[in-house]
Amino acid sequence: MKQTLREIASFLCGEIVGDPQVIIENVRGIDEAGKGDLTFIANPKYLKNLDTTNASAIIVPPGTTRDDKNMIIVDDPYVAFGKVLGLFYPEDHDPPRISGTTYIEDGAIVSKDAKIYPGVYIGRGATIERGVVLYPGVTIGRHVFIGEDSILYPNVTVYRRCIIAKRVILHAGVVVGGDGFGFARPGLDNIKIPQVGIVQIDDDVEVGANTTIDRGNPGKTWIQKGVKIDNLVQIAHNVVIGENSVVVSQVGIAGSTKLGKSVIIGGQAGLVGHITIGDHVMVGARSGVHDDVPSNQVISGSPHLPHRQWLRVEACVAQLPEMRKTVASLLKRVTELELEIKTKGIT
Amino acid sequence: MKQTLREIASFLCGEIVGDPQVIIENVRGIDEAGKGDLTFIANPKYLKNLDTTNASAIIVPPGTTRDDKNMIIVDDPYVAFGKVLGLFYPEDHDPPRISGTTYIEDGAIVSKDAKIYPGVYIGRGATIERGVVLYPGVTIGRHVFIGEDSILYPNVTVYRRCIIAKRVILHAGVVVGGDGFGFARPGLDNIKIPQVGIVQIDDDVEVGANTTIDRGNPGKTWIQKGVKIDNLVQIAHNVVIGENSVVVSQVGIAGSTKLGKSVIIGGQAGLVGHITIGDHVMVGARSGVHDDVPSNQVISGSPHLPHRQWLRVEACVAQLPEMRKTVASLLKRVTELELEIKTKGIT
Amino acid sequence: MKQTLREIASFLCGEIVGDPQVIIENVRGIDEAGKGDLTFIANPKYLKNLDTTNASAIIVPPGTTRDDKNMIIVDDPYVAFGKVLGLFYPEDHDPPRISGTTYIEDGAIVSKDAKIYPGVYIGRGATIERGVVLYPGVTIGRHVFIGEDSILYPNVTVYRRCIIAKRVILHAGVVVGGDGFGFARPGLDNIKIPQVGIVQIDDDVEVGANTTIDRGNPGKTWIQKGVKIDNLVQIAHNVVIGENSVVVSQVGIAGSTKLGKSVIIGGQAGLVGHITIGDHVMVGARSGVHDDVPSNQVISGSPHLPHRQWLRVEACVAQLPEMRKTVASLLKRVTELELEIKTKGIT
Repeated sequence: MKQTLREIASFLCGEIVGDPQVIIENVRGIDEAGKGDLTFIANPKYLKNLDTTNASAIIVPPGTTRDDKNMIIVDDPYVAFGKVLGLFYPEDHDPPRISGTTYIEDGAIVSKDAKIYPGVYIGRGATIERGVVLYPGVTIGRHVFIGEDSILYPNVTVYRRCIIAKRVILHAGVVVGGDGFGFARPGLDNIKIPQVGIVQIDDDVEVGANTTIDRGNPGKTWIQKGVKIDNLVQIAHNVVIGENSVVVSQVGIAGSTKLGKSVIIGGQAGLVGHITIGDHVMVGARSGVHDDVPSNQVISGSPHLPHRQWLRVEACVAQLPEMRKTVASLLKRVTELELEIKTKGIT
Repeated sequence: MKQTLREIASFLCGEIVGDPQVIIENVRGIDEAGKGDLTFIANPKYLKNLDTTNASAIIVPPGTTRDDKNMIIVDDPYVAFGKVLGLFYPEDHDPPRISGTTYIEDGAIVSKDAKIYPGVYIGRGATIERGVVLYPGVTIGRHVFIGEDSILYPNVTVYRRCIIAKRVILHAGVVVGGDGFGFARPGLDNIKIPQVGIVQIDDDVEVGANTTIDRGNPGKTWIQKGVKIDNLVQIAHNVVIGENSVVVSQVGIAGSTKLGKSVIIGGQAGLVGHITIGDHVMVGARSGVHDDVPSNQVISGSPHLPHRQWLRVEACVAQLPEMRKTVASLLKRVTELELEIKTKGIT
Repeated sequence: MKQTLREIASFLCGEIVGDPQVIIENVRGIDEAGKGDLTFIANPKYLKNLDTTNASAIIVPPGTTRDDKNMIIVDDPYVAFGKVLGLFYPEDHDPPRISGTTYIEDGAIVSKDAKIYPGVYIGRGATIERGVVLYPGVTIGRHVFIGEDSILYPNVTVYRRCIIAKRVILHAGVVVGGDGFGFARPGLDNIKIPQVGIVQIDDDVEVGANTTIDRGNPGKTWIQKGVKIDNLVQIAHNVVIGENSVVVSQVGIAGSTKLGKSVIIGGQAGLVGHITIGDHVMVGARSGVHDDVPSNQVISGSPHLPHRQWLRVEACVAQLPEMRKTVASLLKRVTELELEIKTKGIT
């Protein structure tokens, strides 16, 4: 694909600096970009990279003043870059040019405008709406609902009765609605408690590869609108994740914990069960969260602390051997002082 | 489904308090329960919730004395609640109402009373006993054995020669019998050591979604009777997990480590290889276990300590910045004292 | 299979001590080995196990002097043991003795010498070279390349345009090329940035079950020659892993981080994004790596420290409660000293 800078700027509603006729043939990161490439700088502190990039043009934030570069000025360069990526690399979920077997049980309702690949299984009572894409190896359990324009990549499993809303993306290997980990008398006879609830995933959620979301019991595990979950995350039964929250890879959230809106959980963090995390909380990577967190807090560490306190604690931890030496030396000196005073006396 | 309280109490062999004719139409958690719902309280310390619940009836432990509520008294309310869930929500693994292709290699033995969904692959030499359910996308390697009434959810893979006993449940995406991580000269030329052993899973084991259990080499990785493993757990080659142990999600157990009976491992914990954990050990969530643990211990922390000691250590960690200040101040004060005594002398 | 010790020694180019006519029928670990079994000792410090093993013969390192055992002396007993395992347990990836449906879209190029199991899906534009084995449930996206003799176990997904070189092994459930976790304005409106790059996996790489490797954006995520990755590992977009590196299970590596050659990362470690790890670095299990690491370092801890320093820190952590007591006592004693001197005066 070839576009002039003018065409791209027009597509982005951005302002051109430099030559509007320069031809853009590809889109790359700032270090790799060369002649014919468009790149971007989102953060003003990286504007110094303008000196070294070989890109033919750069998307930059407002206030960037250079007259030796071809630039498009937009409010949010990263978002604009995303739009251009979508322009140059349109995603292709066309139906396959092959006839193959899909297994649709009697009593499933599948829109004729859904794209169902060979090797898909759909149980009875399920509803698949228009625009849905089901890749090979997807298994849709009985009475599941998949809303408009959702995309389920290969080998996704959705267990019985779960609800997936519109424009949801489930990457390969995601498991929605497996049994929660509920056993009476754990360690003794481990009696299984039937897991009879569901998972409800609202509009515009994206879930990364091989992530697992267990069904509620009773009631539901609920992933609210706009939530983004990374790969290999574990969401236990009856967890609620509030709107637009972001959960990075390998996080584990134990049963019945509730997250507010716009919460961000760093990678490999763990949250115990039955706690409540307020809105706009940020949890550092690898934190261990063991208790409720009020809204608007930033926390880190395991067990978690307010982030600034954690930074101070961290700094101390590395210096512990030195502190131990100091304490041992003080112990000796104080004992000597005491002895000296005791022996010699004070008048 | 509608049942009188009397019918449910009879099913549970429990004792009724209140109106035996009250109609129960559903089963819910104590906060969500309303008219027509049965709920439960397992722990006496939550009996105060009896004041606020709108449930039509509650399953309660012995010794609960209230005359204003409809209750069923049983020895273990959680187990009883599980039974009622199973009554109201019977699981349905009926064979599909669809004819579809299964791929059964010549020389596999498949019971006519097994339920094999379309899209299942069974290799030669495999045995599938009566009552087994294999969901779509399940792949059974050559010479695998699957015992009576085991359920393998979609996209489970069992590699060659592994043995799965009776009433085992493997949730979607589980991988049994992948190669252990065995390479000679790691970091140099990483020569692969063939992994020729097997995985043996005994009766009544349940394994959560996307968990991986590597084959032994040589010999076996062994999950004993009644063990329950959660989602996204890693079990390396030649690990042994003793009867009725419980392993919570995202735990990793390295090669050749042996767990006794009734061990409970909290979420995201990691156990190094070649150690032995005794019976009835409890390992706290996110612990790092680096050494043998005798039976009946409770341990926490990374590296692990006895749980009570870990609690004391944890309390100190948060106060490290304060302790550092105290030590710095002491250092100054002791130096001044020494100087004062040296300068002025002691008679 | 039966072999004389002479035949095996000849196959290994090793030197025999003892009876070359002894018959070997199986290969086992040193503790389980009995009559008819061959076993091995790799590390001279375990040579004392020669006293207790019942094996008919043992593969040992140079310099082992015993005249009461049948032994084969080789330079690297573990590598030799691997070779014998391969001799006694040849892996069988023969094509299935069954005709079944594979779904090959028009415009895919599949070698007639590839082994494609039923239930495999191959998108248009893909190339599958000779000797490749694709097990049931494998999905190959459009324009993917799979090089000679690579083995993809059941339910592996390779997204569009990714490149897999020769002799690569991807275990069951691996996902290659899922979208990286790229969203503008995280926590606000989470605008998805299209992920348009690829994953490139070079020759002789092995990837464990259910591991996920995200596609680059733009550009590539790159797993270089000879790298070995264990189960349930997360590799984010644009990560580069240098030749012959080893990544143990449940590790997470965040976006754009670059690893040098022969790096070894212990289990459950986490590496933040945008850092550079030098060649031959060793990272301890469960470490949290937050910054660049120069070549040839050994690091541990979270946040990471040089390994020896971390050991000293760890030792202090366990003794914190005692140190706190000492500090409190010192505080009291110094205050008393000060008071005594102030009250009584020093002449």
